Amino acid sequence: MSSNKLQIIKTMQPKEKPDVNQVKFGSVFTDHMFKMNYTIDKGWHDAKIIPYQPITLDPAAMIFHYGQTVFEGLKAYRTNDDQILLFRPEQNMRRLNSSSERLSIPQIDEEEVLYYLQQLISIEKDWVPKDPGTSLYIRPFIIATENSLNVNPSCSYTFMIILSPVAAYYPEGINPVRIYVEEQFTRAVKGGTGMAKTAGNYSAAYNAQSAASTLGYSQVLWLDGLEKKYIEEVGSMNVFFKINGEIITPELNGSILEGITRKSLIQLLNSWNVPVVERKITIQEIVEAYEKGLLEEAFGTGTAAVISPIGELIWNDLSIKINQGETGETAKRLYDTLTKIQTGKISDPFGWTQQVRELDETIPSH
Amino acid sequence: MSSNKLQIIKTMQPKEKPDVNQVKFGSVFTDHMFKMNYTIDKGWHDAKIIPYQPITLDPAAMIFHYGQTVFEGLKAYRTNDDQILLFRPEQNMRRLNSSSERLSIPQIDEEEVLYYLQQLISIEKDWVPKDPGTSLYIRPFIIATENSLNVNPSCSYTFMIILSPVAAYYPEGINPVRIYVEEQFTRAVKGGTGMAKTAGNYSAAYNAQSAASTLGYSQVLWLDGLEKKYIEEVGSMNVFFKINGEIITPELNGSILEGITRKSLIQLLNSWNVPVVERKITIQEIVEAYEKGLLEEAFGTGTAAVISPIGELIWNDLSIKINQGETGETAKRLYDTLTKIQTGKISDPFGWTQQVRELDETIPSH
Repeated sequence: MSSNKLQIIKTMQPKEKPDVNQVKFGSVFTDHMFKMNYTIDKGWHDAKIIPYQPITLDPAAMIFHYGQTVFEGLKAYRTNDDQILLFRPEQNMRRLNSSSERLSIPQIDEEEVLYYLQQLISIEKDWVPKDPGTSLYIRPFIIATENSLNVNPSCSYTFMIILSPVAAYYPEGINPVRIYVEEQFTRAVKGGTGMAKTAGNYSAAYNAQSAASTLGYSQVLWLDGLEKKYIEEVGSMNVFFKINGEIITPELNGSILEGITRKSLIQLLNSWNVPVVERKITIQEIVEAYEKGLLEEAFGTGTAAVISPIGELIWNDLSIKINQGETGETAKRLYDTLTKIQTGKISDPFGWTQQVRELDETIPSH
Repeated sequence: MSSNKLQIIKTMQPKEKPDVNQVKFGSVFTDHMFKMNYTIDKGWHDAKIIPYQPITLDPAAMIFHYGQTVFEGLKAYRTNDDQILLFRPEQNMRRLNSSSERLSIPQIDEEEVLYYLQQLISIEKDWVPKDPGTSLYIRPFIIATENSLNVNPSCSYTFMIILSPVAAYYPEGINPVRIYVEEQFTRAVKGGTGMAKTAGNYSAAYNAQSAASTLGYSQVLWLDGLEKKYIEEVGSMNVFFKINGEIITPELNGSILEGITRKSLIQLLNSWNVPVVERKITIQEIVEAYEKGLLEEAFGTGTAAVISPIGELIWNDLSIKINQGETGETAKRLYDTLTKIQTGKISDPFGWTQQVRELDETIPSH
C-alpha cells in the first residue's frame, strides 16, 4: 500500500449541505468522489480523489450491454464527540472481491482501497450528518469499461466511491411492515448470482416489488428458486425469525447475500446467549409455528435499514400476523445495540468500528 | 408516428471505414448513432441522429447500480445490387418491449423506432460491408439514467442505437465446435430474467464460459436451473438437435430467450416438411440417442453467428461426438438458405426482409 499513489484534487466550489431529513435516500452526493482505473497491463492504477462529477463513457462500454459490475453499501456515522466511525468496512471490501470473482472482475487490494476510503471520508467529514439515525452512505462500485460488443469479460474497469448523506431509512422509525410471499418471480438460484452484489439482481426484482406495492405491501419475501419452498431473503435484506424463543435465519446457500448486518446480529445474539441458528427454513414451517402460536418475531436486516420488523406476512390467502403487528423485543434490542455500537454510544467489544483518521497531510493536495 | 420529431445532425468528420475482416466483432462503430430520452412527464422524446460520441452520466445513474437495461441485436445486409436489407427488425422491437416489461422499463413505440432505425441505416448505408458473411450489426439498447441509489425503477431512461460493421462471426466458416455441459453455474431459472435480453444475464455466464475455455471448449451447454436436467441454451444461443430425422429444440419456458433466428429456422423447416418440434429435452435423452446411433446433428442458433454446429458435447466424463465432428446437412441447408434470404440472394417467400429506404429528405438536416 503506497499512499503516494493517491492524487487528491479538491473542489473549488463546495456545495451547500442539505437537511438530510428532507432529501430522498441516495439522491444527494458530497463534494468529492474516489476513482481508479484498471487495465490488463497496469492493473488498478490512477487512484484519485476528485470533485464529484459526471463520467463519460463510450456507448459501447460493456457496462451498458453485459452488466459486468459489482457494488457495496456501507455507512459512516458521527459520534456525539464528533468522531467519524466506519462499521466493519473490511467486510465490505472482502465481499466486493467475492462478488467480483463471480462476475469475472479483477480483485482489488482490500487494504489499499480501505485506505483510499478513509482518505475520502476524512476529506468529506463535514458531510457526515449529526441527527439520530442519519449517516453518510458509502457506495463503492466497479463497472466494465471496454468499448466492445463482444460477449466476454472486459479488459478495463473503473472503480468509484460516491457518498450520500442519508436520513434514517424508515423516517417513521422501525415500524413493522406488511410483506407478500412471492411465488411468481425468482430472485436467485443455486449457481446464479444471488450471493453477489451485482446490479442485475436488483432490477430483476422490480416486477415483484411493484406487484407487492400495488397490493399494499412494502416488500416481498423471496422463496428459493428451485422448489419455492425455502425462505431466502426479504426485499433486498436478509431475514430472521423468532420461533419459540429461538432465532432462525436461512443458512448461506450460494443464492443468499452474505449480509454484514446479518453476520453482526448473529454475533450479538451469541454474545447474549440467545439461541440463534442458521439453517434451511420453509414457508410451511413459518405457517405451522404461527398456527401453534410459536411465531414470535420476524425481521429483515441490512445496511440501509439495519432492521425492518415484519408485522404481517401474506402467503396466498393466508395472513400471518406477527407479534400483533408490533416490533418484537429481540428486533428492538438488536436494533438499539447495533446502532449504538455503530454511532459510538456504547462500547464496541467486537472491534467492529473503525475511526476515520485525519487526512494524511503528507500527501500533496492541489 | 410523426417523422418530424427526428432531429438529424450529421458529422463533419466521417471516419475511415476499416477492413471488417481485420477488426474484432463489435469493436468499430459508424459515424452516427440514434438517441432519445424518456422522462415520466414527457414520455420518449428528443429523438435524434447525431455523430457517434461518448455519453455523460452521473456516477449515481441507476444503470451503474441496479442493472435496469435491455438490448437487442440485429443486422443489416448488403445485397449484390447494393440494396440494404434488414432481417425481421419488427421482431426485435417486439422483443425489446417484452424484455423491457420484465425489467420495468417503459415501452417504446415499435413502429416509430423502426422508422428511426431505417433513417439511421440509410444515413450509414456506406458502412454496410460487401464481403460474403459480413454485415452491419445493429445494437439498440435502453439504460436507466435517474441519479439515485434508491432501489426502485428509474424515472428516466436513454434509448440508443449504435452500429458496428462486422465480419462473419466465425471467420473460419461454420465449423463445428466443442461444447461443455455446464453443471455448476446456472444461466436462468423460471421466474427470473432468462427470457429477457438484459445485461445481467450475460456477465453472469462469464465464469462458466471461462472455465469451459480453459478446458479447451468453445461454449457451455446450459441445463435448466431447477433440476439440471433439461437442455436450455448453448452459450448465448438457442440450441437444436436432430435425432432420427426429427429436429428438436427446447420449448420456450420463461427462462429461454425467444430467438428470432430460432423462430425463423423453425418456419423454414416447416416449409420444407422437415419434422421439427419444440419440447422439453433432457441431456439424458441426448446421451441415449447418441448411444443408439440416432443423434445426427446439434447446432446453436443466433443473430451473431446464425448457426454454430456442435461437433462434440462433453458431459461429465462422456464425450458425445456428433456427425463425426462435421457440419450436418440440416445445419448447412438452414445456414445457406437463411443467409441467402438475409442477403437477397434468393427470394424471400416469408416477407422477412425489409429494404432500407432512402433517407426522407423532407426532414431538415443540419
